[in-house]
Amino acid sequence: MIELTTIIDGKALAGEVEAETLERAKKLANKAIVPGLATVLVGENPASQMYIRLKHSACSRAGIRSENVLLPESSTEEEIIAKIEELNLREDINGILLQLPLPGGLNPQRAMMSILPEKDVDGFHPRNMGALLLGAERLVPCTPLGIIYALERLDKKLEGTEVVIVGHSNVVGKPLAAMMLNRNATVQVCHVFTRDLAEHTRDADILVVAAGVPGLIKKEMVRPGAYIFDVGINRVGDKTVGDVDYEEVSQIAGAITPVPGGVGPLTVAMLLRQTLNATEDQTKDQQ
Amino acid sequence: MIELTTIIDGKALAGEVEAETLERAKKLANKAIVPGLATVLVGENPASQMYIRLKHSACSRAGIRSENVLLPESSTEEEIIAKIEELNLREDINGILLQLPLPGGLNPQRAMMSILPEKDVDGFHPRNMGALLLGAERLVPCTPLGIIYALERLDKKLEGTEVVIVGHSNVVGKPLAAMMLNRNATVQVCHVFTRDLAEHTRDADILVVAAGVPGLIKKEMVRPGAYIFDVGINRVGDKTVGDVDYEEVSQIAGAITPVPGGVGPLTVAMLLRQTLNATEDQTKDQQ
Repeated sequence: MIELTTIIDGKALAGEVEAETLERAKKLANKAIVPGLATVLVGENPASQMYIRLKHSACSRAGIRSENVLLPESSTEEEIIAKIEELNLREDINGILLQLPLPGGLNPQRAMMSILPEKDVDGFHPRNMGALLLGAERLVPCTPLGIIYALERLDKKLEGTEVVIVGHSNVVGKPLAAMMLNRNATVQVCHVFTRDLAEHTRDADILVVAAGVPGLIKKEMVRPGAYIFDVGINRVGDKTVGDVDYEEVSQIAGAITPVPGGVGPLTVAMLLRQTLNATEDQTKDQQ
Repeated sequence: MIELTTIIDGKALAGEVEAETLERAKKLANKAIVPGLATVLVGENPASQMYIRLKHSACSRAGIRSENVLLPESSTEEEIIAKIEELNLREDINGILLQLPLPGGLNPQRAMMSILPEKDVDGFHPRNMGALLLGAERLVPCTPLGIIYALERLDKKLEGTEVVIVGHSNVVGKPLAAMMLNRNATVQVCHVFTRDLAEHTRDADILVVAAGVPGLIKKEMVRPGAYIFDVGINRVGDKTVGDVDYEEVSQIAGAITPVPGGVGPLTVAMLLRQTLNATEDQTKDQQ
């Protein structure tokens, strides 16, 4: 019997989330509520500019009004925070996103903390991260949420499942580990200091790779039938590739996300979803 | 060559922490500052009464003024919160601890959140948990902190080390996992839903067990030379035993905590330490 590999089509799933978000936005429109997202972009990093464009065009498809606040490269931490505090006060802005990374030298920590937790649609505020760790998830980081969303759509059971995460960042690895534990998965987190990576990855029913190392995960490091989520986005020559050797690993995986077109679109879709959640929460009295 | 097992003497380590805390308290006394801890006990749970007594007597040895607020079993959530808010305002109280569990039916979540994060010496506030997850540890849960303290005292390297945690509670498993990742250990978290526990525990250089199941961990589940922390406190007949079969496992472990006298005293010691940290932070201007 030949088991076929499921290609996890992030773009298609994102399209469905956009349609669902648009429906929710229409219901709010009946009460004269329009969900609003503000992005804050500091400087002129081309990759950041591209991500901002992607997010705004997704918003326009999903019934979310969005605006970008562009601050000059030379902005100080205080200037960024002052702008965020303005957005915190605006009733027509339900979600605020500070595009990272900030220009060299600026520490994003204080600026991120100045976002009102209720409007923190990226889920990075310590208040939201703490609720996440304690199992009372509210607004959470979008990449881990997108992965869990896809697994739910694939009807993959999480309880008792062996999940291995490669990478222990604040944005993906650590919050995803906590979210998987909240769902009673068994969790392993590996990273650049791990002694024998393959020893761990071979245990995985679900393998999530967010290491930023092109082609790190080879076929012999993966259990046949495993579900693979590749969070890596690496430029190699003129190609964009992930952290997983897709050609090799897709031959034995049970399911796998391509790069591009996998985890990326799912992440943006979750931003839309959380902006709707935040809007509904903030306008409860009006509904 | 015979490798001897180190018995991790939690009581002795706690005694050293108490002495060190007393020194720090004496320095504050020169500026007329006395660290103050308030415990809040609701009802008459005998185990809770015992823990409260242990904490207050440790305070008295460590130069911390402590008081207990006793609330009746019949207290409402609102009454508990009102009392905590009184303590939040008092300048002579630097740390506040709500003894858990609360009497049946009362959800501790809201009451714990009403403790000022700066006075949350148990480290359970979402704000402090979030900082922990993000790697900016401030006040953190005392049991994980005690384990990390003991490992530091034993000069055990954490970076790249295989840490296996059994139990995924909000109080021990999840925060300890994040703290170990912050120190670049490779981390596995298992629990009651894990399919093959021994498969995981045998990987451990450091094994932390917080499952509440007497004698869960047998010799054949442990790698020879591993460091074992037993968080379990179980009553079996008239004896208090941990989650590790001490007699068997202590024969092959590199180091092991006894029960009682291991993790318990370390946990109380970290409460003292964090009360001093909180006091110093709150009185910076006076120093």
